[in-house]
Amino acid sequence: MTESTTGRRGGGRAGRQAARLRAAVERVPFLTRALAPFEVLSDEGLELLEQNADTILERVGIEFHGAPEAVRLFADVGADVDGERVRFPRGMCRGIVQATAPETFTQVARNPANSVVFGGRNTIFAPAYGSPFVTDLDNGRRYGTIEDFRNFVKLAYAAPHVHHSGGTVCEPVDLPVNKRHLDMVYAHLRYSDKPFMGSVTHPERARDTVEMARIVFGADFLESNTVVCSLINANSPLVWDATMLGAATAYAEANQAVMMTPFILAGAMSPATVAATCTQTLAESLAGMAYVQLVRPGAPVVLGSFASSISMQSGAPTFGTPEPALVLYVMAALARRLRVPFRSGGALTASKGADAQAAYESANTMQPTLLGGVNFVLHAAGWLEGGLAMGYEKFVLDADQLGMWHAFARGVDLSENGQALDAFLTNEPGQHFLGHPHTLANFETAFYRSPLADNASFEQWEAEGARDAAQRANAVWKRMLADYEPPPIDDAVDAELCEWIERKKASFPDSSV
Amino acid sequence: MTESTTGRRGGGRAGRQAARLRAAVERVPFLTRALAPFEVLSDEGLELLEQNADTILERVGIEFHGAPEAVRLFADVGADVDGERVRFPRGMCRGIVQATAPETFTQVARNPANSVVFGGRNTIFAPAYGSPFVTDLDNGRRYGTIEDFRNFVKLAYAAPHVHHSGGTVCEPVDLPVNKRHLDMVYAHLRYSDKPFMGSVTHPERARDTVEMARIVFGADFLESNTVVCSLINANSPLVWDATMLGAATAYAEANQAVMMTPFILAGAMSPATVAATCTQTLAESLAGMAYVQLVRPGAPVVLGSFASSISMQSGAPTFGTPEPALVLYVMAALARRLRVPFRSGGALTASKGADAQAAYESANTMQPTLLGGVNFVLHAAGWLEGGLAMGYEKFVLDADQLGMWHAFARGVDLSENGQALDAFLTNEPGQHFLGHPHTLANFETAFYRSPLADNASFEQWEAEGARDAAQRANAVWKRMLADYEPPPIDDAVDAELCEWIERKKASFPDSSV
Repeated sequence: MTESTTGRRGGGRAGRQAARLRAAVERVPFLTRALAPFEVLSDEGLELLEQNADTILERVGIEFHGAPEAVRLFADVGADVDGERVRFPRGMCRGIVQATAPETFTQVARNPANSVVFGGRNTIFAPAYGSPFVTDLDNGRRYGTIEDFRNFVKLAYAAPHVHHSGGTVCEPVDLPVNKRHLDMVYAHLRYSDKPFMGSVTHPERARDTVEMARIVFGADFLESNTVVCSLINANSPLVWDATMLGAATAYAEANQAVMMTPFILAGAMSPATVAATCTQTLAESLAGMAYVQLVRPGAPVVLGSFASSISMQSGAPTFGTPEPALVLYVMAALARRLRVPFRSGGALTASKGADAQAAYESANTMQPTLLGGVNFVLHAAGWLEGGLAMGYEKFVLDADQLGMWHAFARGVDLSENGQALDAFLTNEPGQHFLGHPHTLANFETAFYRSPLADNASFEQWEAEGARDAAQRANAVWKRMLADYEPPPIDDAVDAELCEWIERKKASFPDSSV
Repeated sequence: MTESTTGRRGGGRAGRQAARLRAAVERVPFLTRALAPFEVLSDEGLELLEQNADTILERVGIEFHGAPEAVRLFADVGADVDGERVRFPRGMCRGIVQATAPETFTQVARNPANSVVFGGRNTIFAPAYGSPFVTDLDNGRRYGTIEDFRNFVKLAYAAPHVHHSGGTVCEPVDLPVNKRHLDMVYAHLRYSDKPFMGSVTHPERARDTVEMARIVFGADFLESNTVVCSLINANSPLVWDATMLGAATAYAEANQAVMMTPFILAGAMSPATVAATCTQTLAESLAGMAYVQLVRPGAPVVLGSFASSISMQSGAPTFGTPEPALVLYVMAALARRLRVPFRSGGALTASKGADAQAAYESANTMQPTLLGGVNFVLHAAGWLEGGLAMGYEKFVLDADQLGMWHAFARGVDLSENGQALDAFLTNEPGQHFLGHPHTLANFETAFYRSPLADNASFEQWEAEGARDAAQRANAVWKRMLADYEPPPIDDAVDAELCEWIERKKASFPDSSV
């Protein structure tokens, strides 16, 4: 016997794919991992990095650009202030964070069945974020529009293993820069009922996001509940700027969650080693999280890390390489030691399309994401071209992988049914298990069923058009959009929301900044 | 700052790729993992599966088809024999294996610098095995020939992170079935100097392999050294057949290594659960390994596992799904407890070409392969279509991933250079590290450099032909073959080998079985 195998029969491929999609009614608000995280460093190694982060915070410090309020807050608690530079006594930032930052928190969704819990062994998948371009096989790469934005909100809503509606799923470049956040937030609230992220491009836009959330969830509700979770990037190395801090302030004051995330391409924004990149990420995020806790003690905050490498030959960012995978494992462990939720990972790639490079690089990032124990996974579906493009085909290919990670993270079933001893004792050597009662009893749930993988024979595959994975994905996202039905919303709430947006839009002129 | 990034500059892409290939002079005989394996079951869980395997061996037993010598050997040590069925007292097989099977052993290569050590934290990558078809972008899918076979031996020889020449890298269908093993073994010995696998399709062909090895390495040398390691598949469920056992016998008698490998598509050859598939794999491999130890106590033997799932809808084999990944982690842990080297894993996929499905599925198998701690990775490069086809483009794409796993498995460097504290203390906030002396000192070795990933800007990529990963891989394998130079071989040895083969071929008629 050799290890060559082939599909048995095919037929009605498109129909089967559609049926599988319809069958995917499984809706899980988030994933809870049964498996302990994979560790790449010992406790001593992690402590060394923590000590080094403290050395950076103490001796180099962090600059808060154009943010005198942040500097004042740190001065008040005893930090060493020199202009915009703040140097922190050893352990200060960690002490501030650990005193009041919650270890876990819930982000309430418009549909409470879709609420997600940050922290612990939970993992939340959200779409890619921030791309100015979108791409698909029919129309190629072009600037994103509000229609694309709505499409990706709908796709995330329809994808059973995407838990979160995300934020800037693509830039709606057809709308004025200073007003597009209103249409984006509205799209998340209207076309989905999963949790979502708010605007961070200006403090005022963050406050708009909070206002819109108050209309939908109630102002009182927001005081004691988190309904928005937003991405705040550091300006690495060792800088937080006024725009991002202003947005963070607006959210924290309203008790809404922020993910304080150094964005680091190692070799450019940090020294070109894994240990140094982790050290710097920890130092920057500690300072950012401490700031949030000073603004509002107890406000939900997440330690974020976005780290990749660069080509040392061309300077281009690279993704899915081994070094960022190691960074991810280390940062997840550091967040656990700090006892705060952790954001990182995603289906990252530098590839321009949904080809083998895209899949290999994405898988190489998603694996540490899951095994390392990331709590919030931004960019879990759709990311292409180093984040410059959101891909329709890539989105559904990635979303399929998220389903696989769900099945994996459940771990090994050691129940009586899982052990299947009775099946062995009632089956002769040489006799297949295909028709065995145990197999028939487990028929539906035994294995993850991919709606995209082609497992047919070569002949069948050829007869069906010899389509590669991207071509099959093209048919899948179109069907998902065709089948999309919006979640219900209270008409009065929707009307109030639309009215508020119109009034807001009319109150100031369009602008391209 | 948003998380969008782009390549900086491009230019002379093909030239750069070629340069990187030439630069890949790094030759490592095998990979040694610095990281502890990832565990998905507790010791109690693993022990439960061991107990269940013993229950199967005791109450159902194993059938040895057409192999009265095997039955007699087991009867002699006290097993319960009923025709071809052998039932084993609890613990018997484990006891036999643990009494004499080596925990680690070396397979000596023709070039001793390429010798590999099986067991411990070592991982050895070998090409895919057993495909009747080959495929590439120029000529599509067709039956393999001896020219294809030689090509893949040459590619494995030239690939710096493929440690092993493999065995039936594809079936040379243009040669007579009963003689092609002679040309295959010769190709491994002549066109490569990495370690290789022998023929297992008939006991006589296994003996031919040993004879050829004796000519090259010396008959005396083989008595105390292992130079061939071969794949012996069980006929699951719970059957070992005469052909495979005959080949195993020939190798074991000559002190050459065999990998006793149940080949299981769960749901067909085993019950459709992870725990049951592991239990059965352990039972079958224990019986196979015990047989080898009875044939020649101390002969090198490997616990093998090839397990995947099937589509419960079509019956087609599926790859890269979550359940086989869990099986792989469990089997690796069971092999560690048994203290024998472990073979499993590979870049497995059901895809017909080197597309996103192929890469996702391959990555999903290679991750548990590496993190679980597989010692010998057959099918590490080239596998397509459930093993029916060997892909030229897939081979070089996979081989690139093997390089990444090398970098990953080194773990985190915590040296002073790795910590880079001095770099932090000599760099101001907001100031990039691109020109920093620490970055310049680490320029060459900081990050894994992929010869295949395209990290250029969209515009540059488009200007260079908008080639996807498979198209770029097409150019790479052609260049590798064009640049191939055979390793040196002693002319007298080569002449003796060729003479022996000619004599052998002339001694019996061609046959198609």
